Amino acid sequence: MNTAETATATTLRDRARAFVERDGVHYTILGVIIFNAITLGLSTSQTLRAEIGGVLTVIDRAVLTFFVIELALKFFAYGLRFFTNAWNIFDFVVVGLGLMPDRAGLSALRGLRVIRAMRLLSVIPQMRAVVQALLDALPGMGAVIVMISIVFYVFGVMATLMYGAAFPDWFGTLGRSLYSLFQIMTLESWSMGIVRPVMEQYPMAWLFFVPFIVVTAFSVLNLFIGLLVNTMQSAVEEEAEAEFETLRQLVRSETDQVDAHVLDLHQEIKALRAEVAALKGAGT
Amino acid sequence: MNTAETATATTLRDRARAFVERDGVHYTILGVIIFNAITLGLSTSQTLRAEIGGVLTVIDRAVLTFFVIELALKFFAYGLRFFTNAWNIFDFVVVGLGLMPDRAGLSALRGLRVIRAMRLLSVIPQMRAVVQALLDALPGMGAVIVMISIVFYVFGVMATLMYGAAFPDWFGTLGRSLYSLFQIMTLESWSMGIVRPVMEQYPMAWLFFVPFIVVTAFSVLNLFIGLLVNTMQSAVEEEAEAEFETLRQLVRSETDQVDAHVLDLHQEIKALRAEVAALKGAGT
Amino acid sequence: MNTAETATATTLRDRARAFVERDGVHYTILGVIIFNAITLGLSTSQTLRAEIGGVLTVIDRAVLTFFVIELALKFFAYGLRFFTNAWNIFDFVVVGLGLMPDRAGLSALRGLRVIRAMRLLSVIPQMRAVVQALLDALPGMGAVIVMISIVFYVFGVMATLMYGAAFPDWFGTLGRSLYSLFQIMTLESWSMGIVRPVMEQYPMAWLFFVPFIVVTAFSVLNLFIGLLVNTMQSAVEEEAEAEFETLRQLVRSETDQVDAHVLDLHQEIKALRAEVAALKGAGT
Amino acid sequence: MNTAETATATTLRDRARAFVERDGVHYTILGVIIFNAITLGLSTSQTLRAEIGGVLTVIDRAVLTFFVIELALKFFAYGLRFFTNAWNIFDFVVVGLGLMPDRAGLSALRGLRVIRAMRLLSVIPQMRAVVQALLDALPGMGAVIVMISIVFYVFGVMATLMYGAAFPDWFGTLGRSLYSLFQIMTLESWSMGIVRPVMEQYPMAWLFFVPFIVVTAFSVLNLFIGLLVNTMQSAVEEEAEAEFETLRQLVRSETDQVDAHVLDLHQEIKALRAEVAALKGAGT
Repeated sequence: MNTAETATATTLRDRARAFVERDGVHYTILGVIIFNAITLGLSTSQTLRAEIGGVLTVIDRAVLTFFVIELALKFFAYGLRFFTNAWNIFDFVVVGLGLMPDRAGLSALRGLRVIRAMRLLSVIPQMRAVVQALLDALPGMGAVIVMISIVFYVFGVMATLMYGAAFPDWFGTLGRSLYSLFQIMTLESWSMGIVRPVMEQYPMAWLFFVPFIVVTAFSVLNLFIGLLVNTMQSAVEEEAEAEFETLRQLVRSETDQVDAHVLDLHQEIKALRAEVAALKGAGT
Repeated sequence: MNTAETATATTLRDRARAFVERDGVHYTILGVIIFNAITLGLSTSQTLRAEIGGVLTVIDRAVLTFFVIELALKFFAYGLRFFTNAWNIFDFVVVGLGLMPDRAGLSALRGLRVIRAMRLLSVIPQMRAVVQALLDALPGMGAVIVMISIVFYVFGVMATLMYGAAFPDWFGTLGRSLYSLFQIMTLESWSMGIVRPVMEQYPMAWLFFVPFIVVTAFSVLNLFIGLLVNTMQSAVEEEAEAEFETLRQLVRSETDQVDAHVLDLHQEIKALRAEVAALKGAGT
Repeated sequence: MNTAETATATTLRDRARAFVERDGVHYTILGVIIFNAITLGLSTSQTLRAEIGGVLTVIDRAVLTFFVIELALKFFAYGLRFFTNAWNIFDFVVVGLGLMPDRAGLSALRGLRVIRAMRLLSVIPQMRAVVQALLDALPGMGAVIVMISIVFYVFGVMATLMYGAAFPDWFGTLGRSLYSLFQIMTLESWSMGIVRPVMEQYPMAWLFFVPFIVVTAFSVLNLFIGLLVNTMQSAVEEEAEAEFETLRQLVRSETDQVDAHVLDLHQEIKALRAEVAALKGAGT
Repeated sequence: MNTAETATATTLRDRARAFVERDGVHYTILGVIIFNAITLGLSTSQTLRAEIGGVLTVIDRAVLTFFVIELALKFFAYGLRFFTNAWNIFDFVVVGLGLMPDRAGLSALRGLRVIRAMRLLSVIPQMRAVVQALLDALPGMGAVIVMISIVFYVFGVMATLMYGAAFPDWFGTLGRSLYSLFQIMTLESWSMGIVRPVMEQYPMAWLFFVPFIVVTAFSVLNLFIGLLVNTMQSAVEEEAEAEFETLRQLVRSETDQVDAHVLDLHQEIKALRAEVAALKGAGT
């Protein structure tokens, strides 16, 4: 491969990049996503599926092909830098999921290709901003989430060992226990559905579940408060910072003005002193 | 139609406007609304309906006629400007709903004419302010609501495709899926009522529902935090702005005072210098 | 009745007042309330009631007598001013409730005399403060509560008219509808328990209930946000007010110091000018 | 025991302290806790228990021995000061719980030894900080928690006396009533599960339960608001305090600069005055 060929490749890449970054192309993609979201919605109707099922399948494959070409083009345009943007990875995974079920043929997995419509979140800039804001909130919640995870794990293991034998559906395995504890944390049927039946066999079970509810509720509350205080603080701070900056500048300019006048005065007095000295010299 | 006729029309309009804007008229309308709210309440009692049902029907029709006349008068008074006020549209729709069921004769629609009592919200100024405050909060929530809608739509289509065949009551159509997902978002019987039965056939279903709960709960939380921060910020800002203004004025007045004294000094020194110069002149 | 007698009465009143305001008396009352709370708790045990039921009844009557005497004494000490204190009215009602059920003999009303233990809230100053803080929050919530009440009333009447005939247990009367709507507002079994069964007969019922949930949830949220912003604002304001005051004083003291020095300078220059004038006088 | 022996003991203690405070030791302990958490998790699987149950038991005993030695060493190193650290007490209790069930042999208590994995919270510094933050929030909530407890107790006694006979499962004893009220406070099945059945026998029961829900919901809300305002206030205050401090220093430095210039001027004028005085002396 000689330099000329590389140059051509680079040129092709630049062209590809310029093409995918065009507004028209962007809106076309958005249009196809919305169109696909609607056809996916229509395909949930059994009547429509019976009548125009063939058309819907054709449309779906065409859209998928379109998306694959789009991403291939973007990958060609940006090279490996394509994967440095989290939204591209999102698009890649989401379109990739659409390719799988056709192979697997599992009806339950069929639904996964609908996730493609989630690309609306990655393509509309305002939606990106909202999702970004949600994700930005996560790191500040890290430590509390780890803490809640530890509490969940420990209570999950305990529940499995203590109630697993008697209530295999709810606490038979660690996974089932964690699911049941999640349900209990959301307060759904925790008492009538789970804890009262358990208490019929283990009357002291409330000593396990009530503290669990109180601890997780309190932790989630703190998670929420932390999040709120952070958001509020940064919002108020910016505002306050601007106000303080204005005030600082006012203090500076006002005192500088006074200072300038004082310094003027200094000059005046220096001049006066010179005159007095001259007078003195003259007087002598 | 000549100018004289137009003038008369205008005069009539002006009179109508002056009439409907009178305090007495306003309170009469309010009184009728409250009276109607009470008679509508009474009409829920089967005993009362049996005894004085005829009277209640007569009252209801009389009140409806009163409202129709009121709105017609307002429409006459304001012309098409009548519809520029959202509250008038609300009154118009709400009174209009009262006219329909009589024609349709559907017992289920009978309840709709009760919405008329909602006019209490549009007629009492304090209530208007509260509703206005609620509505003012909506635009700030727009982007997150769109995001939640997209998430709902995508999960709704997925649920219909994946679980629709096995659980037609819950996920048979897109509409049913959206309703079920709304129920799951409110955490009502989500696990014992919906997800556990689904998991008996699709053991991996929790991979679909638990993330849905976490994502929507987190989004709603952020919606709420955004709303709260906005409200708080505008409340705190006004207060802070006033404090900063006071402080700025204090800084200005204080430094101005010092500055004035410095300038006085300047005058003094200038005078002194003149005297020294005079002395110098005299000394020479 | 002559003046001497009135004087004696006044003296007796003063003495009574001094007596009931003594710390020892206050703590004795507190002790009796706690003791009574414990004996009331013990009386819930059937075993204990069988064994020492007589003793508990005697104690209960003794405590009630003690409270009646206490309140009579307070009423004697303060006269009609007794009722100007809301806490006294609370004590009066709560002790009064204890006198009723003995007469009525209804077992269901027996529980009411336990409300007496609520006097812990009125006798411990910290508890009074907490309850006061809760009550202070109410007025700010007034308008939104009225709005929610109107929404409840209108939806209640509508539900009764539309679904009352088909679901008499839930919506048969206005009262039952309001109770069911309250349950739906708390999201308890709203879908699986109420709305899904209703939708089996009226498939459009979700158009009634889902908006009701959204509107009330949003209103309660705003109620909460209003409350929070108010609390926060007053808390932050106090703090900020103090900071601003400190800053204002600093600005004043600092500029006053500079100003004092400038005025000193003024004196100095005046003196200098006098000297120059003297020199001038001397020089001439 | 002579001084030499004491010295040796002290030396040993110092060594022990230096040893347990080593980073390597700390990480080893952390590693053992995580390893134990995993083996405890594995022991929930019946398949694994059947296959490598013996190994797991041996590991568990080894880990327990390791923990006992670790705590004994720490106790030796710090003496009674060991118990001044709340985290040490936590470790002590949590490891101690692991020793009990082996003796008791109760399968239900077996789960308690899993609490040991909670030591992750006490060993990882970030987790300590999170837990500390949660605990720090408690004192500020004290008064409201006491108030809610009083309300719970009073309503619990009332419910037992009023509904205990008819609904022994829910309100048969004070304990059961408190549990049921806790369930009602979390809004779980409060209406369909508890209050509606109760209302079938006592139609007025809603007068007891609805106010209970409103009062506790409102109290918990206030608890939460108080917590939030406190957190927010301290977060904002620190920030504001820093801003105000900067501003104060700016005001001070700016006015000090002006003041310095004014004082310079003073010196200048003093010098001038001296010269004028000299001139005067010379002139005379």
